[in-house]
Amino acid sequence: MFAKKHIISMRDFSRAEIDHILQRAEALETFASERSTDILAGKILAMLFYEPSTRTRLSFETAMKRLGGETISMVSTEASSAAKGEMLADTIRVVGEYADVIVLRHPKEGSTRMSAEMSDVPIINAGDGAGHHPTQTLLDLYTIKRESNLRNLNIALIGDLKYGRTVHSLVYALSLYGAKISLVSPEQLCIPSDIKEDLTKSGIDVYETTKLEDVMEDADVVYVTRIQKERFPDLSEYQKVAGSYRISLKSLKNCKEDMIIMHPLPRVDEIDTEMDSTKHAKYFKQAFYGVPVRMAVLSLVLGCDV
Amino acid sequence: MFAKKHIISMRDFSRAEIDHILQRAEALETFASERSTDILAGKILAMLFYEPSTRTRLSFETAMKRLGGETISMVSTEASSAAKGEMLADTIRVVGEYADVIVLRHPKEGSTRMSAEMSDVPIINAGDGAGHHPTQTLLDLYTIKRESNLRNLNIALIGDLKYGRTVHSLVYALSLYGAKISLVSPEQLCIPSDIKEDLTKSGIDVYETTKLEDVMEDADVVYVTRIQKERFPDLSEYQKVAGSYRISLKSLKNCKEDMIIMHPLPRVDEIDTEMDSTKHAKYFKQAFYGVPVRMAVLSLVLGCDV
Amino acid sequence: MFAKKHIISMRDFSRAEIDHILQRAEALETFASERSTDILAGKILAMLFYEPSTRTRLSFETAMKRLGGETISMVSTEASSAAKGEMLADTIRVVGEYADVIVLRHPKEGSTRMSAEMSDVPIINAGDGAGHHPTQTLLDLYTIKRESNLRNLNIALIGDLKYGRTVHSLVYALSLYGAKISLVSPEQLCIPSDIKEDLTKSGIDVYETTKLEDVMEDADVVYVTRIQKERFPDLSEYQKVAGSYRISLKSLKNCKEDMIIMHPLPRVDEIDTEMDSTKHAKYFKQAFYGVPVRMAVLSLVLGCDV
Repeated sequence: MFAKKHIISMRDFSRAEIDHILQRAEALETFASERSTDILAGKILAMLFYEPSTRTRLSFETAMKRLGGETISMVSTEASSAAKGEMLADTIRVVGEYADVIVLRHPKEGSTRMSAEMSDVPIINAGDGAGHHPTQTLLDLYTIKRESNLRNLNIALIGDLKYGRTVHSLVYALSLYGAKISLVSPEQLCIPSDIKEDLTKSGIDVYETTKLEDVMEDADVVYVTRIQKERFPDLSEYQKVAGSYRISLKSLKNCKEDMIIMHPLPRVDEIDTEMDSTKHAKYFKQAFYGVPVRMAVLSLVLGCDV
Repeated sequence: MFAKKHIISMRDFSRAEIDHILQRAEALETFASERSTDILAGKILAMLFYEPSTRTRLSFETAMKRLGGETISMVSTEASSAAKGEMLADTIRVVGEYADVIVLRHPKEGSTRMSAEMSDVPIINAGDGAGHHPTQTLLDLYTIKRESNLRNLNIALIGDLKYGRTVHSLVYALSLYGAKISLVSPEQLCIPSDIKEDLTKSGIDVYETTKLEDVMEDADVVYVTRIQKERFPDLSEYQKVAGSYRISLKSLKNCKEDMIIMHPLPRVDEIDTEMDSTKHAKYFKQAFYGVPVRMAVLSLVLGCDV
Repeated sequence: MFAKKHIISMRDFSRAEIDHILQRAEALETFASERSTDILAGKILAMLFYEPSTRTRLSFETAMKRLGGETISMVSTEASSAAKGEMLADTIRVVGEYADVIVLRHPKEGSTRMSAEMSDVPIINAGDGAGHHPTQTLLDLYTIKRESNLRNLNIALIGDLKYGRTVHSLVYALSLYGAKISLVSPEQLCIPSDIKEDLTKSGIDVYETTKLEDVMEDADVVYVTRIQKERFPDLSEYQKVAGSYRISLKSLKNCKEDMIIMHPLPRVDEIDTEMDSTKHAKYFKQAFYGVPVRMAVLSLVLGCDV
């Protein structure tokens, strides 16, 4: 189903395809920590990271190694012939001569899809600027599946809903599952109108508010995002809203017993560290789930999904 | 024949020795992509790169891992105790206590041979400034062997023939095989006279021209090189010749049916991307051949060539 | 005894515990070079290095790979989301979801112990500023055990005894074995008084001098340290003493036949390279011993010490 396919955007996948990946992740989860397996022995994953990313890179490398595969890495422009002005397309072609699969992170939106068109080996998009980062969305869905429930979900998305690609991709995916979605942000950071329209057209029940307390009582999942300084054209705009929508023990008043808090990480101060020891905190577990999800994606595109 | 030997310069090898490496590469080529092997299991390759190089580094790492070995890497001066002023000789001695073989890239000409003198483990030169880069030459020869023919070869070398170490090393090696060599460059970038004299003394038929069209009709191999900005003392000199000798579909008029185009990569614009889909383009395949050739070199110096 | 334990400071260990690690290293030493083993197959070591360190990093990676394990690495702040302002504690928690053990180097004293408190997987301190670096001390002890004798040792410590954490940690450990310790430094770089008092209280025979020649005759081990420019608040203070206490062939006059010279490396010029070929020089061997010692530590904290 996925052998030799590129993984560029969530929008390329049907719900059945997403379910297939999540089931595969569940089958592999045991190999993500306690023991490992050899199903990708002899396979090489190339990591091409033109932007830094600890979690994503280490998570993919872990996934590949837990499956018995190997990795080669090129991180940032400095340690590469990108410095000599090589075209991305040529780098992709060359690295595809070495590796069996490429994970690409590049600051330019659309660069990954262009790369996929040039590539003989599968390309997995690990973030292209303000664009897509599908394995992040898949691990978000997987976390919800494992720690809450993808069906009849009531999810509240908090923080920067305007610039956050994580949120845009996640709400699209959730729309395939029929969730009720609450959007909580300052007015200048509310979700783009085209995305909201898409949700409404999909028959999704969308509720917008600027107040955190409006949503905490009913939410099954509270998905908190960082307000990313680097996405703001104007620093003063950032400072005005920084620290808003901070989740603390006080926020838990009236929340559901089994409500879970998620965060794509890194956080700055939007979730108080006092939350970490509560049963609601699932953001570190969410990071862990990146491993089985990436194991699933890697094994599927490499055709080793027996 | 090569166990425990250092690989510093093509000039250290006889034709019989080169043939031995190329045959070894051919025997290992199947393990370079479809499946891997375990003949270097338990061996560790240390990559010491004091200059960036995506292709060379990833290609060596791929070669080692396809053979079942492991790698450790130190890239650039920043991520190292070179920043604390450690002598290269000491670094080599220390890393030789960890690894079974060292691949060294260093900006200073001659640094690799000096390092080899200090080292108890084999050193493979992966480029020392304007000096040598023998595995590049070996993969060039291997590409010619696999995609054309090393005997009675008619090869045209295009571009920067003055500063390009790749070309100097390749023409020396080709002289062992009796090729007919055409040299195409702007006058200020023609091949150094001592190298030309060496060729003539070896009985090689050398033809020099400034015009690309003079050589395209007869060439079996057209070897294009980048005019490297960083080798020029004067930027204006670079700009004058940049873009000369660009290969495009028009250049193919009258060329031989089985003519192949090679390039050590990265290219800037000296080969038009419209060439990539022609049967003549072999520069990405050439990059691939770096893997079996480096597998051959690694297994030979490690004495695992059964 | 060590399974799931953090390795933060030598001061956390009894002599019996140190002996246990050194014996384990001895049992594993054969796997550090000639052949490797698979006892850590399927295990992943994460290297988190917020400061550069060639030797320590490559030595740990070698140790892990010689044992059949895998590594993932994050080196320096640039290649990481540290650039996005992530808290160290969060990074540790996230990486602990991927890896089975973490080796941490961080410029801030105490950061490793704080990290250990947050971590579900064992943390091994690979240097925290002017603080601790226990595996360096363990490999120093192991070198003495293998190349000299830990009992009734007469050791001379030369150079920067004020700022050098290596020395402070080593003299503490040696005090557990009852050594006779000679301290040789310029007056402004003599050992801190609290450390000297600790030694005296432990019943250790301590001798202080500013003259190298006072100690060479009786020493079993001459442990030379670099005078580290970056530890000096004032550059002129550094320059005054740089080059003092340089060991050369002349220093060997009257020394014991089996005296050994150690150095944690990198050196600048405090040991003349003419010493390298003498039988007394053990500093490269000392670097090698880092591998079995780190193999021992890794296998012990991972509970794979059968």
